[in-house]
Amino acid sequence: MSLSELSREDLTELHAQQTAAYEELVGRGLKLDLTRGKPSAAQLDLSNELLTLPGAGVYADQAGVDCRNYGGTQGLLELREIFAPLLGVPVDQLVGGDNASLSIMHDTIVFSLLKGPVGGEPWVRQPVKFICPVPGYDRHFALCEQFGIEMIPVPLDEHGPDLDQVRELVASDPAVKGIWIVPTYANPTGAVYSEEVTRALVEMPTAADDFRIFWDNAYAVHHLTDTETPAIDVLGLAAAAGQPDRVFVFASTSKITFAGAGVSFFASSAANVAWYLAHLGKRTIGPDKINHLRHVLHLKSPEGVRELMRRHRAIIEPKFDQVIQILQTRLGDHGAATWTQPDGGYFISLDVPDGTATRVVSLAKAAGIVMTAAGAAFPYGRDPRDRNIRIAPTMPEPADVALAIEGLSTCVLLAAAEQALTGASALSA
Amino acid sequence: MSLSELSREDLTELHAQQTAAYEELVGRGLKLDLTRGKPSAAQLDLSNELLTLPGAGVYADQAGVDCRNYGGTQGLLELREIFAPLLGVPVDQLVGGDNASLSIMHDTIVFSLLKGPVGGEPWVRQPVKFICPVPGYDRHFALCEQFGIEMIPVPLDEHGPDLDQVRELVASDPAVKGIWIVPTYANPTGAVYSEEVTRALVEMPTAADDFRIFWDNAYAVHHLTDTETPAIDVLGLAAAAGQPDRVFVFASTSKITFAGAGVSFFASSAANVAWYLAHLGKRTIGPDKINHLRHVLHLKSPEGVRELMRRHRAIIEPKFDQVIQILQTRLGDHGAATWTQPDGGYFISLDVPDGTATRVVSLAKAAGIVMTAAGAAFPYGRDPRDRNIRIAPTMPEPADVALAIEGLSTCVLLAAAEQALTGASALSA
Repeated sequence: MSLSELSREDLTELHAQQTAAYEELVGRGLKLDLTRGKPSAAQLDLSNELLTLPGAGVYADQAGVDCRNYGGTQGLLELREIFAPLLGVPVDQLVGGDNASLSIMHDTIVFSLLKGPVGGEPWVRQPVKFICPVPGYDRHFALCEQFGIEMIPVPLDEHGPDLDQVRELVASDPAVKGIWIVPTYANPTGAVYSEEVTRALVEMPTAADDFRIFWDNAYAVHHLTDTETPAIDVLGLAAAAGQPDRVFVFASTSKITFAGAGVSFFASSAANVAWYLAHLGKRTIGPDKINHLRHVLHLKSPEGVRELMRRHRAIIEPKFDQVIQILQTRLGDHGAATWTQPDGGYFISLDVPDGTATRVVSLAKAAGIVMTAAGAAFPYGRDPRDRNIRIAPTMPEPADVALAIEGLSTCVLLAAAEQALTGASALSA
Repeated sequence: MSLSELSREDLTELHAQQTAAYEELVGRGLKLDLTRGKPSAAQLDLSNELLTLPGAGVYADQAGVDCRNYGGTQGLLELREIFAPLLGVPVDQLVGGDNASLSIMHDTIVFSLLKGPVGGEPWVRQPVKFICPVPGYDRHFALCEQFGIEMIPVPLDEHGPDLDQVRELVASDPAVKGIWIVPTYANPTGAVYSEEVTRALVEMPTAADDFRIFWDNAYAVHHLTDTETPAIDVLGLAAAAGQPDRVFVFASTSKITFAGAGVSFFASSAANVAWYLAHLGKRTIGPDKINHLRHVLHLKSPEGVRELMRRHRAIIEPKFDQVIQILQTRLGDHGAATWTQPDGGYFISLDVPDGTATRVVSLAKAAGIVMTAAGAAFPYGRDPRDRNIRIAPTMPEPADVALAIEGLSTCVLLAAAEQALTGASALSA
């Protein structure tokens, strides 16, 4: 029976039950962390080959270049050849970098601010705004905050953001220079952008000539079902729409090989790649090509990456299933929450009753279950409905995931009962 | 006999001789590159252990952290413990980064421009000037040019820049926010900053409260003699002078292990390190800690680094000796050039007769000997006397170094004879 249908008496009983359950939970002294989308040790083990690669005496790439020395700003060709088809981009428009695509995002913003993007003035000279489909990725929003870029939230559904709102914003305000997009298995909802939405985004008229789509394809190959949806050819669609320079594509192997010691990617139009490499060339004499070589020898081919991702899936899919099953069992009957059932990626997005997310996270923390801060998936950390909680189930052991989500469910029900009682009190007062 | 003492007849003969020698040189069809300070393959081989490290199953640091995963923005403690004594900085004020200290320099400038340094406003709001001791490092100057920072050249002698000029500039103009310094075996002259000069630089009154010394200790342990001068405690001197935040220290293993796959360092006051890490934390979730671990296992200790550098010296010292010997033999009697005899580092700085450096480099290029562009060691590529040429002897094989410097000497003499004849013509006209 749904919480809203309960009598005051039943609510009081539910509250008492959940209070007791919560006290028992606190008594267990748990110490669980579901804050970040980190791979587990078992997932990292899948790439332990990297710990001894490239191997004794192996340091030359296919072209015979000594990867130990300086140079090669665009990264190893054979590494780019593996990832170009996976990301749906031309290999000569793909750049291989160091261990964090976040750094490439940071730098494209910095270069745009200080030098101006292709066809634009330095953004630093005037106010800049970015559209942020919500819920979204907190580190994207942190980059905007870092550089004083005003964030405009727009609701995201399972196929993309509210296009009417987006179209209106970009058409009316030349200060709107960017939009953050995680096109595949979006963080945290698992949304997958359709080709129709993508086409609309690359085609729409914008007041700013130098409007950019920050297309962070972080989970392009991170499938949790047999449907291994290929990456949308966003650069091709943009070029066909006469907007070849509109899209910056980002990706990395952080959740393919080693989270802290992988490789990252940038793809865009030929003009944007030349722009990026010209500025990057002032910052570095080249990426860690030995790590590129390591990854080539470990991953071997696009199919090698796909096979590795299936082994990841075998490890993490049961954790996702477990979360969803526990949420269903504990919360399904109460109508107290909704959650996503993603086909890939790293997160489950949980919506609890409006106004209770902060309370739930706080209750969980006091019980030793650390969740990402409520509101983290929103610009400035402000969830206007205070209802969204991001669940990151990949890192802990399965038994710990179960413990954490059981505990979290208790916190959700307790907070919901508290609120319903207060509301009931208010009504009866 | 010095060129200036030659009669017109003797000059004509010298010109004819060198023209013949040059034609013979061109006929050889050489293809030699002395442009960049790159380690040779034999030097890179010294660290080939890195190609199989950290080793099967090895991924935890001393504290038990899984280095394969995200995190640890400051870098591995045990790596910092190896380099702190070598750089003369406290380990907790040292940050370990990825493969390029140039990137850290870039980012400290970017953070200062967009966010402002500790105690200062964002530099982007007003004109910024840097003092550039010359000759200096072209990539430092390229960073200034990239961000519109006006460069003010100041002459550098063997112990540091002209202090009177530096003091006057920083005291009189609040736009002067920085000075580039390579304190040990400076690129390209081999200058070693004395403690007296260092003290003056950290003590001098500056019109800008947020004036910064960009202390690029790229060659701190790159000795070519038995006198292994330790790094000056520049942070301690700055703190003692009441200017703890004045100095940014940079270093890397680019010329210790692998030029393209090493680790880099930043050191400064506690406040500046906190500032740097706070901004860096928006850009990345941590450096490549597996590469840190690799370096710890390879280098082992400060003495391990010193021993490795002695093996480097054994490879490159003969190349430096050869360059100096050939220059002495070919040019010494003519008074046509002067050159440095560095006690360490990667370069020999050659001064040819005023107004001929561009011609020399052009002649050399036409003969298949590629030197760094004339003027490269000066802001905006402009050597006001057009006399300086940077020689980078480490990369080619010894026989090729000899061929290149023999050829270069021919070019120097030919250009000098051409000029002297023109001058003589002008006089006799």
